[in-house]
Amino acid sequence: MKNTKKLLFTFIISIIFSLSSCVIVDIETTKRSSQETQNASKQAQVPKNIVMVIADGMGPAYVTAYRFYMDDPTTEVVEHTVLDQHLVGTARTQPHQTSGYITDSASSATAMSAGVKTYNGAIGVDINKQPLETVLHRAHKYGMQTGLAVTSQIVHASPAAFMVANEARRNYNQIADSYYDDTINSQHLADVMLGGGWRYFLRDDRNLVAEFKQSDYQYVDSYNMLEALKPSENVLGLFADTGLPSALDDTDPHRLRTLTQSAVKHLENRENGFFLLVEASQVDWAGHGNDIASAMAEMDDLAKTMEFLYAYAESHPDTLVILTADHSTGGLTIASDGEYRWSPEFLKGHKQSINSISKVIRDKADPAAYFAEQVGYSLDDKEEDIIKAINADMTERQVAAVLKGIVDKRSNTGWTTSGHTGVDVNVYAFGPGAELFKDNQENTDIAHKIFRLLDEKFEKDKE
Amino acid sequence: MKNTKKLLFTFIISIIFSLSSCVIVDIETTKRSSQETQNASKQAQVPKNIVMVIADGMGPAYVTAYRFYMDDPTTEVVEHTVLDQHLVGTARTQPHQTSGYITDSASSATAMSAGVKTYNGAIGVDINKQPLETVLHRAHKYGMQTGLAVTSQIVHASPAAFMVANEARRNYNQIADSYYDDTINSQHLADVMLGGGWRYFLRDDRNLVAEFKQSDYQYVDSYNMLEALKPSENVLGLFADTGLPSALDDTDPHRLRTLTQSAVKHLENRENGFFLLVEASQVDWAGHGNDIASAMAEMDDLAKTMEFLYAYAESHPDTLVILTADHSTGGLTIASDGEYRWSPEFLKGHKQSINSISKVIRDKADPAAYFAEQVGYSLDDKEEDIIKAINADMTERQVAAVLKGIVDKRSNTGWTTSGHTGVDVNVYAFGPGAELFKDNQENTDIAHKIFRLLDEKFEKDKE
Repeated sequence: MKNTKKLLFTFIISIIFSLSSCVIVDIETTKRSSQETQNASKQAQVPKNIVMVIADGMGPAYVTAYRFYMDDPTTEVVEHTVLDQHLVGTARTQPHQTSGYITDSASSATAMSAGVKTYNGAIGVDINKQPLETVLHRAHKYGMQTGLAVTSQIVHASPAAFMVANEARRNYNQIADSYYDDTINSQHLADVMLGGGWRYFLRDDRNLVAEFKQSDYQYVDSYNMLEALKPSENVLGLFADTGLPSALDDTDPHRLRTLTQSAVKHLENRENGFFLLVEASQVDWAGHGNDIASAMAEMDDLAKTMEFLYAYAESHPDTLVILTADHSTGGLTIASDGEYRWSPEFLKGHKQSINSISKVIRDKADPAAYFAEQVGYSLDDKEEDIIKAINADMTERQVAAVLKGIVDKRSNTGWTTSGHTGVDVNVYAFGPGAELFKDNQENTDIAHKIFRLLDEKFEKDKE
Repeated sequence: MKNTKKLLFTFIISIIFSLSSCVIVDIETTKRSSQETQNASKQAQVPKNIVMVIADGMGPAYVTAYRFYMDDPTTEVVEHTVLDQHLVGTARTQPHQTSGYITDSASSATAMSAGVKTYNGAIGVDINKQPLETVLHRAHKYGMQTGLAVTSQIVHASPAAFMVANEARRNYNQIADSYYDDTINSQHLADVMLGGGWRYFLRDDRNLVAEFKQSDYQYVDSYNMLEALKPSENVLGLFADTGLPSALDDTDPHRLRTLTQSAVKHLENRENGFFLLVEASQVDWAGHGNDIASAMAEMDDLAKTMEFLYAYAESHPDTLVILTADHSTGGLTIASDGEYRWSPEFLKGHKQSINSISKVIRDKADPAAYFAEQVGYSLDDKEEDIIKAINADMTERQVAAVLKGIVDKRSNTGWTTSGHTGVDVNVYAFGPGAELFKDNQENTDIAHKIFRLLDEKFEKDKE
């Protein structure tokens, strides 16, 4: 930027120099022109629509791994992914110091939604459990449409931290209640909500689906009902009891793209623009499960979603899209055990997640053959022996650990934890205002920058 | 950048608009002024001096870990390090596809020195073993001073790949011979060479130190001789048989800063500027050894070196500094084993590297007390029992593994390999031309950008 500033400075000097050589200079015209320029440039930098995408758990290794996973081995180069083109910076993820250096999704989402470091588990509240205003609240207050499209239950930590205040992320029912009960300008907080979570909305003590319907929300509970919805009207879409099936197990492997496309259709074309939170929630879940093939399938759904959003921003140049992660999960490393190799070719044929295979493999007549069929390659003798050692006394979790061992050895993937790790995450952005998100920044800065963009837009409109 | 371009465009429009309102416009003056502006801006972006810093093995987790390691726990914020301020992008590290996705230091250094992806082990040669021109060669050809300051032997993979062509990195003696025998413009390749490597330069078959002395190089073999050297004269400085002692074990824990300061003193103030390669070689070695306290001490030497270089670039604004890594090592993760904790406070009191402790601990009367003294905290009963189980039959490597287990458990550090991993690495830059290195790029792009800066500078000078 230093050089850009220098460039601008030299340009300004050259204007002054040019003007000083004029016999007559129309000072008033120049002044007006300069004012118009400033307004134009200010306008150009303030987006009408903002899409915030969180890839939960997507540490830097996931992004590189996905590039290798998508590599066409018949070409000499490693092809770039849609993410590679839009990297602008990185974000620091540690929570408030009362929770140490390793964040959970609730604390990190609160940092990004409200700009405040808080304790692990906190949903939209500070360390004193006081409610915080979020960027979604501010957007709604300014009259923007607001929405969520996620692959977890819609009351899961990340979306919840943009929507409501609750001292504990596990209070799913309370959080669901707040989705209905909390209002801004006498309206519910989000105009479009797409994801999972029947059990929190269809309860014995309260039927929130019925309540939303009474508030003129269209309700759908399967992906194929999305097409028939009336556009530009509010929607509640719940497609699973808790989170959606994993990308490898779902009927629609790119269901995040499907939900995001639908959300945009319902939010767009209204006067004040929209704020949409998109979450690729299950990159994190695959990371917790140390299931590398599932992680890559979730990354693929994210990448297809980003491709849609990039095309949308190209045709709607008033749209800013920001993508980042809340933390890294699983301690994923590309290569392990002293070997200089990573072999994603063994991950592309997986037909189901490891968890799904683990549920049924013990009931199969030939478990080794079944596993080979599900992962898409022939097993060697050693791998067959490992699977033959699976027995009825083992828990599903133990079975999964055995199967993941085979996959990790084949692909030479490393993991260090079933939890989160502290590495900085990447930040991607395109559209007006994108350059604000460059450099290394605190995750709280992301919220501050969005607040600033919202305030600039609506304060300018008031002028 | 898009918005910057828009800003520039609107400025240009406003110039035209302003000028069109003049009654008389001196077209010739304007033209000249514009030409001067272009030259000035071109000049501003082309550095006189280029310092390329490689932190060998410094994957993204090392940078975050070092920030936490340096955190002052008495303040609420995590203080930023010198690196954080200058992040501009990331680099992809995979070698030529004949070597898969995980690079070694030779291949990655060749990518960054010559702009060509090659096989693992290659020093400045392509996959057909043909020699490549490096940025150091081109700089020297243009009449710049050139230098190396590294903590490995000066013929180790990274510096070697900037200096010479050899089909195999382990050919240290051949590489050392080439350091003397290869010339550009009848001069040796580097004017200043500081690092380790007596055994490759003082051999039964050849005394390269004597040969360099005959070529008017000053020779020193201890850090305290550096001060007395005549400035602006060529130097060969070798301070260890192979690599220098690790930062924790060396008499000067910031010996990379010491060597870098000395190198700059000898290279600066000559007509055509200088190209200096600095390598924090032993971040990688600590990573291979999975020794987290050593890794942090090496990072601290790097950070102090960067602080010196930043101050130098501030007072010499014609100096560009680029910092990146060649790959990540060890599969380091910040937290492990399902626990959301990382505890760098147990790493700051280490007095020796784990390898050094492992060499002597079996000879101590009370090994547990000795270890406690060396790491700076009291051991609990479980840790004492682990150390008591160390016996004379164990190899030094086995002893080291036991001790590292204690350190990793205390700090909750994760590792997945004794080798390298494939994650993209961070890129930092400051000074004129720094913005060229932003975004996600191939490591080969770094060389291409340096070539471009060198060509622009010297082609402009010829004009």
